[in-house]
This record gives sequence, structure tokens and C-alpha cells, in this order.
Amino acid sequence: ELRVQPSWSPPAGTDVPQLRLYNSLTRAKVGKILNVSKYSCFWRYPATVWANKPLHWKKMPSQNKKKKLISRNFYLEINEKILNVSNFSLVQEPFVPQRGNRVTWYCCGPTVYDASHMGHARSYISFDILRRTLSDYFKYDVFYCINITDIDDKIIKRARQNYLLEQYKEKKPQPAQILQDVLSARGPFQASLASTSDPDKKQMMERLDAAVADALEPLQGALEMLVNEGNRRVKALLESSKDLLADWLDKQFGSQVTENSIFSILPKYWEGEYHKDMEALNVLPPDVLTRVSEYVPEIVEFVKKIVSNGYGYESNGSVYFNTSKFDSSPQHSYAKLVPEAVGDQKALQEGEGDLSISADRLSEKKSQNDFALWKASKPGEPSWDSPWGKGRPGWHIECSAMAGSILGESMDIHGGGFDLRFPHHDNELAQSEAFFENDHWVRYFLHTGHLTIAGCKMSKSLKNFITIKDALAKNTARQLRLAFLMHSWKDTLDYSSNTMESAVQYEKFMNEFFLNVKDILRAPTDVTGQFEKWEEAEVELNNSFYDRKAAVHEALCDNIDTRTAMEEMRVLVGQSNSYVASRKNAKLRPNRLLMESIAVYLTNMLKIFGAIEGSDPIGFPVGGQDQSVDLESTVMPYLSVLSDFRENVRKIAREQKVMELLQLCDDVRDETLPELGVRLEDHEGLPTVVKLVDKETLLKEKEEKKKIYCKCDIMAKLAKMKTPPCEMFRCETDKYSSFDETGFPTHDAEGKELSKGQAKKLRKLYEAQEKLHSEYLQMNQNGN
Amino acid sequence: ELRVQPSWSPPAGTDVPQLRLYNSLTRAKVGKILNVSKYSCFWRYPATVWANKPLHWKKMPSQNKKKKLISRNFYLEINEKILNVSNFSLVQEPFVPQRGNRVTWYCCGPTVYDASHMGHARSYISFDILRRTLSDYFKYDVFYCINITDIDDKIIKRARQNYLLEQYKEKKPQPAQILQDVLSARGPFQASLASTSDPDKKQMMERLDAAVADALEPLQGALEMLVNEGNRRVKALLESSKDLLADWLDKQFGSQVTENSIFSILPKYWEGEYHKDMEALNVLPPDVLTRVSEYVPEIVEFVKKIVSNGYGYESNGSVYFNTSKFDSSPQHSYAKLVPEAVGDQKALQEGEGDLSISADRLSEKKSQNDFALWKASKPGEPSWDSPWGKGRPGWHIECSAMAGSILGESMDIHGGGFDLRFPHHDNELAQSEAFFENDHWVRYFLHTGHLTIAGCKMSKSLKNFITIKDALAKNTARQLRLAFLMHSWKDTLDYSSNTMESAVQYEKFMNEFFLNVKDILRAPTDVTGQFEKWEEAEVELNNSFYDRKAAVHEALCDNIDTRTAMEEMRVLVGQSNSYVASRKNAKLRPNRLLMESIAVYLTNMLKIFGAIEGSDPIGFPVGGQDQSVDLESTVMPYLSVLSDFRENVRKIAREQKVMELLQLCDDVRDETLPELGVRLEDHEGLPTVVKLVDKETLLKEKEEKKKIYCKCDIMAKLAKMKTPPCEMFRCETDKYSSFDETGFPTHDAEGKELSKGQAKKLRKLYEAQEKLHSEYLQMNQNGN
Repeated sequence: ELRVQPSWSPPAGTDVPQLRLYNSLTRAKVGKILNVSKYSCFWRYPATVWANKPLHWKKMPSQNKKKKLISRNFYLEINEKILNVSNFSLVQEPFVPQRGNRVTWYCCGPTVYDASHMGHARSYISFDILRRTLSDYFKYDVFYCINITDIDDKIIKRARQNYLLEQYKEKKPQPAQILQDVLSARGPFQASLASTSDPDKKQMMERLDAAVADALEPLQGALEMLVNEGNRRVKALLESSKDLLADWLDKQFGSQVTENSIFSILPKYWEGEYHKDMEALNVLPPDVLTRVSEYVPEIVEFVKKIVSNGYGYESNGSVYFNTSKFDSSPQHSYAKLVPEAVGDQKALQEGEGDLSISADRLSEKKSQNDFALWKASKPGEPSWDSPWGKGRPGWHIECSAMAGSILGESMDIHGGGFDLRFPHHDNELAQSEAFFENDHWVRYFLHTGHLTIAGCKMSKSLKNFITIKDALAKNTARQLRLAFLMHSWKDTLDYSSNTMESAVQYEKFMNEFFLNVKDILRAPTDVTGQFEKWEEAEVELNNSFYDRKAAVHEALCDNIDTRTAMEEMRVLVGQSNSYVASRKNAKLRPNRLLMESIAVYLTNMLKIFGAIEGSDPIGFPVGGQDQSVDLESTVMPYLSVLSDFRENVRKIAREQKVMELLQLCDDVRDETLPELGVRLEDHEGLPTVVKLVDKETLLKEKEEKKKIYCKCDIMAKLAKMKTPPCEMFRCETDKYSSFDETGFPTHDAEGKELSKGQAKKLRKLYEAQEKLHSEYLQMNQNGN
Repeated sequence: ELRVQPSWSPPAGTDVPQLRLYNSLTRAKVGKILNVSKYSCFWRYPATVWANKPLHWKKMPSQNKKKKLISRNFYLEINEKILNVSNFSLVQEPFVPQRGNRVTWYCCGPTVYDASHMGHARSYISFDILRRTLSDYFKYDVFYCINITDIDDKIIKRARQNYLLEQYKEKKPQPAQILQDVLSARGPFQASLASTSDPDKKQMMERLDAAVADALEPLQGALEMLVNEGNRRVKALLESSKDLLADWLDKQFGSQVTENSIFSILPKYWEGEYHKDMEALNVLPPDVLTRVSEYVPEIVEFVKKIVSNGYGYESNGSVYFNTSKFDSSPQHSYAKLVPEAVGDQKALQEGEGDLSISADRLSEKKSQNDFALWKASKPGEPSWDSPWGKGRPGWHIECSAMAGSILGESMDIHGGGFDLRFPHHDNELAQSEAFFENDHWVRYFLHTGHLTIAGCKMSKSLKNFITIKDALAKNTARQLRLAFLMHSWKDTLDYSSNTMESAVQYEKFMNEFFLNVKDILRAPTDVTGQFEKWEEAEVELNNSFYDRKAAVHEALCDNIDTRTAMEEMRVLVGQSNSYVASRKNAKLRPNRLLMESIAVYLTNMLKIFGAIEGSDPIGFPVGGQDQSVDLESTVMPYLSVLSDFRENVRKIAREQKVMELLQLCDDVRDETLPELGVRLEDHEGLPTVVKLVDKETLLKEKEEKKKIYCKCDIMAKLAKMKTPPCEMFRCETDKYSSFDETGFPTHDAEGKELSKGQAKKLRKLYEAQEKLHSEYLQMNQNGN
């Protein structure tokens, strides 16, 4: 009988968690509720679910084992109302891209008219972490697109006001004129203050008004008296009232601003600043970046199609989106993200922009819920040609047209800050689904939580923001990122010293571990000695290591819960530290390979999270963020050549007495090389010592040296000044043997009378000393 | 009515291929055959399946969409017999680890008694690629264990023979004695040659015998005549007959070797060499490495349990595995990997080892298919204590005990070379399943294909091997790896100049692309200019880019088919090159960001495959394998200081005519800096140009320059020699106006007679030329 292989069956395997994301379109990490026994009418409603205990998973025996069933007591939140529900079933849907492994992703980028602040950073860093995790950890082929909004009412207004204020200042108006103008501008401002009901905004305006009042007071009625000091006070007034003046000037002259470059220089500048901030924060650049100004023709085409599909209408040169027409069509639904916000006029008007909410504009619309797709431009506003006359794109349409142009009729993920949900993202959705005539333009909508300071939302309009540069002056980009990683990306984060202190502590804890492991690995060994036998303790720590990895994986699958992942990593370090301590107590060396594996894993996770740059296999890069190379071993061979060469030059220069060359050698040592962080130490008769030192330290040393030199010079000069001319030659008995009554030498050391020529030379020195000494006496008289 | 979110359903998604591995336990990438309509009796047999056309996948409508159905005409290979089968169903099972994402993996490491050769490298590099792909691409938590076999019959024999041969040589025997000993040793060798039937082995032995004969001939019968030359010839004889002598000495004195260190120094040395080879090949170290010598107590315990479970028996101080007892027990099956090989005595005896197949040993066994778990040691063999007396472990038991100790009762993957399947791996399986009383000690068994040279298997015993060091002298580690990546890991690979040439070409093609992209990215731009608008061509290339990524993913899922993956990567480069060319034709710059994304992806894939080291985001590291830092930007500031300093020194040295310093400056340029790969180019009146060039290139340039200088010197000297003295001054009419009959000048240019002093000087030159010219004439006479 022919022997054959026995039958084989695959291992049962255990459940491997799959990625689930909190989707703003369902407000849940679950796909949909299949059955709720008590509240079965809710089956079609999306829900946010919290378990009161950790979730327990059970397999549904007859079904696909990749689908999971939960059946326990849960709190069910339906549209912000919390109900206690028992016995229901949820189908846990993992994240599913539309096309294989490819994830198309669009994120709303900045409107570039001012510095980015930490509120923006919350979104940018959080999405950077999500993107890195999806692509570097979960290995999706992410295609990430962001846009730059460089046509916008805020930009137009800011550009125009900056321009007008600059013009105003250039004319150098008289203080009296400025005073009068500020008073004129204050009138409408105070009226606006009086009518403001939002308490945060009112407080901000009151602060502003108080500052203006403070600057006005010393000027009012005292203009003549303050001729000299006036300029400073006028400048202070101009500074504190620039917002009032800008508004006031804009109202009068805004419509006369026609130079188009005014509207493109500002956004180009702030886009550059944005990119610099992103680089400083270690946020990866997108795969593709779109600018509104480059997509105006595509936007016009987009609007035309929406109109021809019946969802838009022209009115007075503008085009509006017909929300009720859209919402009533069977395959569409308006405001999928925040349906309860429909009709919120404040939110809608903020979305439309300051220049687009005048009464005549509002009256053009069929419904007050409709919003602008295309805005007719008034004088003083930039414009492009369109079938409806000169105008510019509405805010929401920009993203629809650009994302559509790059990503097509449906994308996997759309992201943005929490406050963009309504009206911006809901309007984007409506427009795009009206354009593509589908109902799935965005599959997963991710929104990052707010950032607050002492509980207050940070925003440009409230002027309570901390810029990214401010934050980076206090903490490193890595510390900021660690702080973000230690919190849920979708919840509000309070940016406080407590928050940052935790991050700094975490960094220290990790760093100490990395340094310890590096020390363990540095212990000398031969080539076979790096592999040591594993005993019980190593097998145990290794098992725990793989359990921690599984826990990190589970956490990241659970809506990219970096907070838990970071905590698991901290636990792993704690366990490793205990292992090391117990080995040391037993006078045994910790296992190199195992410690190395753990440190490499942690380093890789922090690399995936964007918290470690560079290629060091273990730990935070040493010597600054962009200096991860081993400078010493790289640069030293070249420096040695320089040092040897200089030494030989010095030797020859001394022998042949070429002073210029000696000066050159000193300059290289004292001026040039310290700038590069190199210290040369000349030791006569011995080879020059070359040291790579921190540049700052060296420059400080240089300063110190200079000060000492100066001091020496002064001391020497003082000593010289002190000597009266009658004494200056007296002590030089090796040169002169006899002097006259003024102390002037008459005979040389050998007793010969001095020649006329010699006497003449000495007389000059004598007279110079007379002058010097009389200065000294005068200095002393002045008590100097 | 309260507005609520509309219902949401997840996207259908498209099939994402899942990893399937070719499992030697089923000889297929599929799990099992569910139904074969024509040959249904085969349902329980594993099968290797080749499609005669590319596979077409169909979803089974009523089932789990992750399971796939194939229904086409296929060739079914069952136990090497090929049948044409139509209409059958296969369930494609993806690779399933036993515990979450964790993959425990054991690979058979080297038996350390000689240098590793390319046949071993095939297995080590292939497994390194598989391991890196599973951990870095598929993101499994791989735990990888290898062993070092440092107790083994081959090691014992080699260590003993080396020792005896060394002793023999140290005694400095007389040539006559050596001659006699070689003749004595040749007898048994020739007898063994005559009885050898394996043609490859016979050929090798014949070559060896011929070499001995060649060395013997000039010595025989002429010993006295060859007193001087004798030593060289005797050495040659010793060298060519060392194998014969070692065998002969071992037979006589082997049993007297008792010094235990002899048996541990040899494997320790070769283990070190093995690690060095692995590092040179860029093979990652394992997570844990086990040495047999450190696990003897565990092995004894393992054998005891097998005996107590009833599957082993003691005989004459040795312990054997009872194969028929094991095979007949209902839950076990002997030789799962190669059932048809059971009874192959040649294979079995090779597995038992040279020192363990004497007739008395074979007669100890109940069945000739049984194999040793524990071997009683004879005199001259190292030994450890055991319940059965002094002995040592059998070969197969080592892996079972060590893998069991580290990985427990079941592992996910076991790997090794193709020739280890039987008996080694089948015996490992039997022992371990006898110990753990289970039938799943190994879930997936992966075997790498052979490496051949001109179709011949490379092996130590056939002495036709190319060591890893030999191979690395011809090609870089990267080129070797690229060659392996361009072939299927499980099939035989022929190591030929053709194979290597393809790899070198592939490397060049990729490198050229990387250099082009780097050049594109170097073009200066401002901070916003790095983002350019995407037109049709970019969108198209990007779509193709993501299609290629998907194809690479599919290929890697298909049993880690790196060959296809590499081909897809080549296609992507081709498409990118076309895009760049078409942009250049249209006088447009290629899109920076897109080119960067493609180059970064390709670099990352090559990093995952272990073909790129270091942290450069794009391309192969410049300047040698371990110099991945950006040398240019790091070193240049320091080199500039050196260059500027040297330039100033030169200037002053010229002004003050200090020749020594000028020589010093030349030496730095011509001697010192080329050694560091730095080229200084002095351009008079312009700043010195500093270039970082490959060191080899520079040294070659230096050689060339020297040659030219030499040649110039010779040419100039020859030209001078050619001039007869009577002509040497004649042409200098700017100096002299009149000459005597010998051509010696008498008057200067102004007609004045030359002074005696002048004439004396010129006479000296004249005489020197006379001498030179006569040398020239003599040279010509000699035809030189």
C-alpha cells in the first residue's frame, strides 16, 4: 500500500480584533443595531454605545465567524439621550474600505489668513496619528488629500483691512487726526458690543474696548503737551485700536480695493507658515494638496451640474443650494451628520461668511436654510468669470469639487475638526451627493475633538488662542504629540500644565528605560555571547511581552485608542524594569536579546505614532531632533585632517616666523570652529586635541574668554596710565644708567650719552605717557 | 418631529486577498479538498494544485464571503503523480495563527563544524525574507527561534580528526614516514571508493584520489634526491591527502581522544563564523537561539517522557524511538511530511550519523525504521550522564526538546531546508507528538528549495560548495538577496552568472530611478511650491500606483511570491519613467510629491525585504552599506573650514615663498584627503572646489595621475636626451647672437662677448648634455 500524507485541518485560531472606527455618520463604532428587544423601534437609528463593563465577545455559532455578537446590559445613547437598555444585539462591523486595501482620505485643511493655533494643532496632529496608524500599523494603502482654502470671506476681509490699515499708517496722520478717527471708529464698535449676546464674545470685545480706552485717556485733551512722548502714545493707541480702525476703514474704503494680488499674497504667506508649523510638529505632508484658487474652473463645472441636476438655483448672480428639494428626494437626506442642527441660523451664517450675510443677500434665497454655492462678488472682492457673472466659490463647494476631482464619486474617509460637522460637512455631503446622485460620498466621517484652555474653546474669533509656535516654545513637538497620544482623539482635550506634565513624565520614563537597555547592550561580549540561554524568568517576561503587544493591537483596533495603547506600553516597561531589577539582585545580567526586542518594539510603536524620528533602532534620538547620526564617528576623520594640517602649518610658520599664518591658525581655532561646535586645544609639544562640544557651550566659552581678554587689556592699560611719565624709564636700569630731574634718561646702560636720534624716540614715548597719565588723573577726579 | 440620522450601511468592499502559505504538511497552499467530483475518493488527500490558466475566483453566494471557491480544470498532483482532474471544489484557507496575531516560529539552524556555504544561504536568506515579510509587511507578532547544533556525530568526527592531524603534523614526521602513512591510508580509501555507487560522490572521491596520486608520484622512489625541494612536495602531499590521513588516524587513535574541550572549541568557532556570515548577509538575528550543549538536561527529560509514554525503548545504553508503535496508535501518524520515504535506509542512516551506524548499533534496534533518541557514547566521544548511562542526544531529539522548551506543545511555523523533510523533520514531529500526545506540534511546515550550481546540488559532503564569503567577494549582500527575491523561495534556484546578472540589472534599474527622483526633489522651490496641482497624467499614474500596490499585496498573500512582487515593482518604475519622460518632452516638471510617494513606497518594500539598510527615505544608501547617514550635509561644513584655511595658507605661503607649506597643501590634497573620499580641486583665482567622491574612484584617479606624471617625465627626459649638445643653445636666439663650431655660445643677444663666469656656467650645462646625449645614443644602439 502506498503511504500518503494524513488529512490536515487548520488551527481554530483565536479571535483577532479588527479595526473599528467611530463614524460621525452613525455616532458609533458599530455599524447598525440589528435588534433591541425592548426598544425595537430604534433599530434604524445610529447609536453610541458604552458598556458599563468591558465588552465580552461571543461567536454567533451559525454565522460567519468574523461577525461578532454582543448581548449584555448597555447604556444606549440615541441622539444624546441616554437610555438603559438590556438584551439587544449589535453587529460589530469592522472598518471596510471600498476597494481592496486602498483607503482614500480627504481632510479639511486650513483657511490661510492667520497663524495656526493649538486648536488647529489638535486636529492636525490627531489626524497625523490616525493616518500613520492606518498606514504604518494596519498597513492600509492610504491616499491622503488635504486642501488649502485660499479664497474665503475671512481672507478677503483680512487682506483688505491689512492693506487699508497699512495705507493709513503710511500717510502718517497727525495725532489729532488719529484720535479723531479712533473715536469715530469706536462708535460702531460700541454699538456692536452692546448688541452682542454671546458671553465669551462680549467679554473679548469688552477687553478690547478697555484697551482702547486706556490708550485714549492720556491723549485726550493733552495733545499739545505731549509733543515728545506723544509718538509713543499714539503708537500705543494705533496698536490697541487697530481692529476698530481696520473695520472702520474697511466700511468706508473696502469697496475701492481692486488690486487682485492683495488677495493672494496674504494666503500664500500664511500657507507657508502653516507648512512650517506642520514640519515643526512632525506632521507628514499629504499625498496631494489642493488650493481653491487652482480649482475655480472645476468648481464652476461642479455648480453647473448641481443646477442641472435640479438641486441649485441662480439668484441675482449668486447660486444657492436648494436644501428642501434635496432633502425631499427619496435617495437623499440633508444634514446626515447633525440632522437636529437644520435651521440653526447662527451656524449657517457663520458658514456663509461675514461678507455674504447682508439682508439683501439673505433675501435672495428661497429658504433661509439654503446656502451659497457661488457668490456674486461686490466691488472690493476678488472675482472669477462664471455663467452667472463675476463671482467666487462658496466655502462648502470648494471641498466638494476638489475632493471629487481627486478622489471621484466616493471616498473612504473624510476628516475634520468636530465643529466642522455642521454646516460645512453636511453641506459638502449634500452638494456632492447632489452632484454624483448617490448617497455614499463619504463612507466614514471622522471628527477630532476640541482643544480647550481652562475649559474654554480656543478660537481665532475669541482671540484666546495659543499659537503653535507659542506651544513649541514651552514643549517639544514630541511632548505635545505624547500628550495627544495619551488622550482619545475624538474627545475634548484640555491643554494645561497638568496635561503636559504627564507627557513629560511619560517621555522621561520611556527614555530612562531606553538608556538602561542601551547600557545593557553595550556590555562587551563576543559574537556568540550575545545569545544567552533562556530560563523561567525570560520565558515569563516574553509571554507578557506578547500579551502586551496583543493588548496594544486590541486598543488600536478599538477606534485607534492610543491612550490605552500607551498605557499598555508603560506597563510593559514596568514589567521589564522589575525583571532587570530582579536579575541585578541575583547578580545576573539581564538577557540582552529579550531586552533589545522589547526596546525595539516600543521604539517602533513610537515611530509609528510619529513620536520618534530617525533610524536609531532603540530610543529617542540623541542630540536634537534632526541629529540622529553619530556625529563623532562621522566627522572626526575629516577634523583630524584639518587639525594635523593646521599643526604642521603652525610649526613651519613659527620656524620661518610668518606671523600672518599664526594669526590664521588662531582664527580657525577661536572664530571658525566654535561656530561648528568644535573645540581645538593646542598643547605645545603635544598633538592638538580635537573635541566635539555643544555649540552653545563653546560660544559661551568664547564670550567668557573675550571678557577676560578685555578685562586684562583694561587692567594693563590702567596700570600703564597710573605710571607718571617721570617714573616710566626709572626702572629700566638694564637700558639706562642716568636720568634728568624729570626722569628722562640721559645715558645708556654702558654710560654713553644718548644720541639725538635715541633721545627723540624716547621723548615721543615720554610725551605719550604724559597725555595718558593726565587722562588718568582726570578720570580719578571724576570718580570714575 | 425630531430630525434623526438616516440609516447607514457599510460599503460592500472588495475582496482583500489573505495570506496563504505552501504547507509541506499538505503540499499545497490550500487547506483541504472538499469535493472532487471525478475522484471523490481523494477527498482526504492533500494535493498540490497548479492551474493551467490564472485562477479565477468566484464567491460562493450562500457562504461566508471570506471563503473562496474554485471550479475549473486543474492538474492535480497527488503524491507526485499528475492527474488531469475537472470539476472539483477547493476551500482556500488563509494562514491562521493559533493565538491571535502571535506567530511562533522555529527554524533549524546550522550544525557548526565548517563554513556556511551558498546552499545554506538559500535557506537562511529565504527564511529571513519570509520572516521580515510576515512581521514587517503583514504585521504578525513573530517570535522566531533558531537552534545551533553543537553536539553531533559530524562535529565529533571533525573535531577529533582535526586534533589528530594537528598532532601528527606537530611531531614533524620524516618524509619517508609520511609517504608510508599516506600509502597506508590510501588502502581503505580506495576500497571505499570502489564500493561507492552514488555517481556524484564517486566523482568527488576520484578527484581526491587523483590529487593524492599527483602528489605522491614525484616523491615515490626519489626521496634522497629531493632534499631541498622535498619539503614543499611533502607539504603538498600532506595537504592533498589530509582527508585520507585524518580518517586513517581517526580509525587508529580516535577512541583515545578524551579531552572534552576538543569537542566544544570547534563548534564555538564555527558558530561565530556563522553569525558573521549572517550579519554580512543582512539576516536578522533570531529572537531566541538555543544550543544543544545548553539543553542536555531538558533533552534527557524529554526522552524519559517519550519512553514512559510507551514510544521509546532502551537498548544497550541507547534509547530508540519505536516508529511502528507510534504509527499504529490511532491519533498518531509517522512521517507526515514524506510518508513514502519510510523505509529509505540511506536517508535514515544519514540522519543517524556516521558514528552511529555500525552493525552492532543497527542490531540494537527493534526495527530498522527506528531511530536514536539517545546514543551511548563510545570511547573518544563526548558524553553526559543519563539514566541509561553515559551518552549524548540523537540529532532529531535536540530540536524537539529545545523548541518544546521555548514554544510549548504547538508552534505555528516550523522551517528548514527541503532536504530536512525526511527523516529529520518527520522524526521531530513523531517525537514531539509522542511527548505531548497531540497531533499538531507544527501547524505550518515551510521548506525552502535547494540551490544548485549548474544543476548540481551544493553540499559539504560533495565538496562542491561555494562559501558565503566566496559569494560575497563576487556580489554584494544586496545583489544576492535581490537574486533570491526574484525567485520563488520554495523552488530550486540555480546560482549562476545569469541569475546574478539579472539581479545586478534590477538593482541598476531601481537605482537609476531613485537617483532621478532625488534629482527631481532637489530642484529648488519655496515652501508652498512643493505642492503642485494634479492634472490628468498625475491622477492616472497615481491610480496605476495604487493598482501596483494591490498587485504586490496579492502576490505576497500568495505564498509570499516575491518574484511577482518584484516584477510589479519593476512595472511601476517603468510607468513612472514614462510619465517623467512625457513631462520632460512637454517641458514640464514632474510632480514632486507623486514621484516622492512612489520612490518612498519602493524603498520601503525593499527595506521590508531586507534589501535596503538604513534610514534614507529614498533609494539605496550611498557610500557603502553601513554609511546611511547623509554624509554630504553632515561633513561638508567641516570640510569647508579645512578648504578655506588651506586656501589662505597657500596664498600667504606663495606671497612669502614658503615652499614647505605649498608642499604641505599639495599633500593634503593628493595624499590625505583622497583616502577619505574627498577631492579638492584648486582653480587658480577661484575658491577651491570640494567634492565627496567614492574613495575607490579617487584612489584610482590618483593612480592614473601618477602614471601620467611618470610618463610625462619620461617623455620630457627622452626629448631632452635626443638633443645633441651642439644644438642645445642654437635656438636660444633671445639670449645669444653668436656661437662657435661646437654650437657653444660666444656672444650674448646684445652682441657682447660672454664673461668667463657666464661661459663657465654654460660649459657645465653643455657637458651635462653631452653625457645625456651619449646615453641616448647608446640606448638606441641597444634597441631600447
